[in-house]
Amino acid sequence: MQSFNALKERTKDILNLKYATALLEWDQQTYMPEGAAEARASQIATLSKLAHEMLTADETWKLIEAAEREVDTNSDSLEAAIVRITKRDFERSNKLPSQFVAEFAATTAMAHEIWVKARANNDYAAFLPTLEKIFDLCRQQAEYLGYEDHIYDALLDIFEPNAKSAYVAKVFSNLREELVPFAQAIFEHQDRVSDEPLHRQFPLEQQETFGLMIARALGYDFKRGRQDKVVHPFCTSFSRNDVRITTRFYPDFLSPALFGTIHETGHALYEQGLSPELDGTFLADGVSLGVHESQSRLWENIVGRSYGFWSYFYPDAQRIFAGILDDVSLDEFYKAINAVKPSFIRVEADEVTYPLHIMLRFELELDILSGNLSLKDAPEAWNSKMQTYLGITPPNDSEGILQDVHWSSGIIGYFPTYALGTLLSAQLYEAALKDHPSIPEEIQIGKFDTLLEWMRTNIHQHGRRYMPDELIQKATGQSLTHAPYMRYLKEKYTPIYDL
Amino acid sequence: MQSFNALKERTKDILNLKYATALLEWDQQTYMPEGAAEARASQIATLSKLAHEMLTADETWKLIEAAEREVDTNSDSLEAAIVRITKRDFERSNKLPSQFVAEFAATTAMAHEIWVKARANNDYAAFLPTLEKIFDLCRQQAEYLGYEDHIYDALLDIFEPNAKSAYVAKVFSNLREELVPFAQAIFEHQDRVSDEPLHRQFPLEQQETFGLMIARALGYDFKRGRQDKVVHPFCTSFSRNDVRITTRFYPDFLSPALFGTIHETGHALYEQGLSPELDGTFLADGVSLGVHESQSRLWENIVGRSYGFWSYFYPDAQRIFAGILDDVSLDEFYKAINAVKPSFIRVEADEVTYPLHIMLRFELELDILSGNLSLKDAPEAWNSKMQTYLGITPPNDSEGILQDVHWSSGIIGYFPTYALGTLLSAQLYEAALKDHPSIPEEIQIGKFDTLLEWMRTNIHQHGRRYMPDELIQKATGQSLTHAPYMRYLKEKYTPIYDL
Repeated sequence: MQSFNALKERTKDILNLKYATALLEWDQQTYMPEGAAEARASQIATLSKLAHEMLTADETWKLIEAAEREVDTNSDSLEAAIVRITKRDFERSNKLPSQFVAEFAATTAMAHEIWVKARANNDYAAFLPTLEKIFDLCRQQAEYLGYEDHIYDALLDIFEPNAKSAYVAKVFSNLREELVPFAQAIFEHQDRVSDEPLHRQFPLEQQETFGLMIARALGYDFKRGRQDKVVHPFCTSFSRNDVRITTRFYPDFLSPALFGTIHETGHALYEQGLSPELDGTFLADGVSLGVHESQSRLWENIVGRSYGFWSYFYPDAQRIFAGILDDVSLDEFYKAINAVKPSFIRVEADEVTYPLHIMLRFELELDILSGNLSLKDAPEAWNSKMQTYLGITPPNDSEGILQDVHWSSGIIGYFPTYALGTLLSAQLYEAALKDHPSIPEEIQIGKFDTLLEWMRTNIHQHGRRYMPDELIQKATGQSLTHAPYMRYLKEKYTPIYDL
Repeated sequence: MQSFNALKERTKDILNLKYATALLEWDQQTYMPEGAAEARASQIATLSKLAHEMLTADETWKLIEAAEREVDTNSDSLEAAIVRITKRDFERSNKLPSQFVAEFAATTAMAHEIWVKARANNDYAAFLPTLEKIFDLCRQQAEYLGYEDHIYDALLDIFEPNAKSAYVAKVFSNLREELVPFAQAIFEHQDRVSDEPLHRQFPLEQQETFGLMIARALGYDFKRGRQDKVVHPFCTSFSRNDVRITTRFYPDFLSPALFGTIHETGHALYEQGLSPELDGTFLADGVSLGVHESQSRLWENIVGRSYGFWSYFYPDAQRIFAGILDDVSLDEFYKAINAVKPSFIRVEADEVTYPLHIMLRFELELDILSGNLSLKDAPEAWNSKMQTYLGITPPNDSEGILQDVHWSSGIIGYFPTYALGTLLSAQLYEAALKDHPSIPEEIQIGKFDTLLEWMRTNIHQHGRRYMPDELIQKATGQSLTHAPYMRYLKEKYTPIYDL
């Protein structure tokens, strides 16, 4: 196993470069003095370049080939998975010429500024030439990476390995059929729920105390993690023993910090739950963005917005936010955090409407990449789909097609993973409940370890050992489907809105 | 200049690896969760290894040789200095076989734990075998690095390039002749000064406010820096635009945070003052530990413990530490922060006795490396020198030879730089005053920019462009000497102690 071990030594170094890069990025968002921006960009560029060079080096390929002679790569063993995944990453990285990578990086770096301005000025036309360049580059990227059926698959595969756009389209289509009328029925009774209790003055320090208390209760190990304040929250890790979440706090709105903390805790629990066996290998990571999102959505929504959860935590909330929620009953609070309404902005959307925002983006990306829709006509398509799915039309492009950062960053094919993760959260929860029907009662008494352990066993520990679809099938007995999520929504929201 | 530019590109990457390593280390001391220790050690090891490999690679040597054909390295130009210093660093790094470096690292890593225990248990014998191994390794290191006159020179050169132990011994001997009787005269009148006012209850938040206020006033640019709390304070930088200090706070003793902050600010001002021309080159660093220490000592002691400084800041201190210093006059406070007494612990020593602690260590290291003193007999030699220089004998080895971390880290030849910097601080201040006699009056009105600008012009901006001795001669007209420091001490302490 000499070559296999040498390969592991090499992947460990590459990972360490990536962890150091992640720390440079975390520091940039949390504590870095503003004057350091240029130097920090240079540091990140150097480390990213070195990691890329080490991964794509001839020496790495020789070690992979030699390791393939030492390990039966068709077996189900951990060693086989390590060689397979390392080879997959090597091949994908080598498909992109370094000149293309440089052009892509330079274009998206400039695009960010242009997008920020265009959004601020509500000026899609000013962003259009850049956006066309980016879609062109993404088309080229897809050609370099290769695909079998649809050009979209090459991009989707970056975020959701082996996923196919045709399958995603089918799942979304099934979902749409049930979800659009269901959302419509709720919209007609919007007045039955008020989210006013969330829009009161909540002292930041108490928000932090309460969020940390919940994160701890859910199983986030703060000996191997921490929370810091940022403008745009995220979860990052520098090994399974150093997984950090970030949060933003508003003094007059409870939800962003509270549910943001639970959301990022869900991501963190996944990273902290990776098996130590995977340390230093490319398996030591979430298997896909969809599966990662399933974990954040599970804890944020299915657990964190459930009645049982709040029947346990609401007395704490009333105590910690002394006096602020005295006049709000548990029932009212529960309804407030589950208020549903059509809205223009994806990141502010509720559980019911969220997937509709995603479908819209997926359909647009698909049509643009297929050549069925020009970017010039995209805002109109956006607005018309908003009307169809949500019954509202954005007053301007800043609240429409210009709202998300993704495209300006050259990230196309990413959006569907948000919805796939959302659907998967319900599918995994159903499977966990089948094994442990007591979970809902446990949640009512603040006990989360049965559910966490099920996720640890079926999802977290494996990292990238199996392909996403294989992992989902092993865990739930079937491929990803929309049905459990629709069942979950109907069961939950029918009583809330008295439908 | 193609090769020269390629060489600069390469040194930039190596520096970026070092900056990233420094961030990994800063994070370890400030915010890292405890569970991450092992992973962090692995990350630091990878980045250090890669930086070393990049520096010592054949490719680097080829670029240096090619750059030497493009640049007249005997000239006074910046380009010439860049090539010279890069070559110096390359050659030094290549002198140590990688197997030796690994053994050195492994030994000192284990030694740290052993030393911590030995100091806690006051058990020098338990540390002795490890210490012998370390001195052996340092002797080997010196042989690899090479020297002309004395084996000590090879080690000293790591921290104080081109310095010779014979010269240091002569300077110290001159100093000792005047300093020992002067200190003795003060010790006889110890009762004339009380440092009681510093040992009161000072709220941590107010200590922080006051320290930051002073750091800002001295010229520390917080757009390119920040302060954080740690157990063992230090200053670190990830480019001249990101220079961070760290501080520890005691609720019942003002000095560590207050003067610690000013001390680290002195280091930070040096790093922030490097010329932008040096960015990405090996010149972008302090020229030596002695010169670095001259900057911290200058601001901490010559400025920060001067009467003029406190005639400006003492009203702020009384205001910020509301009520705590009301009964203490400016004169009493000034005397308190300048109390002199013989003490066992170096890091707690005052301006007068500090150099004596250093001489003792220098003489011991010299005798041990020369073979004139066995490590077995070293504690006795330590105690006997303490008696000669300070008139006291440590009650045990924990307060004697076991007190410092340096030897356990394999750092021998470092101590003298503390005293060299101390002497140099006075020599530089005298030179600055010769150019700008108004500086003391400026300090009385809280104006520090004339002094800072002089240091910027004569020291900071140059980085490693000149060798330390050359820099000192350019700045002060002569090589390092003890005379200014003795003049400074006599002028200051004769009135304080009414000698």
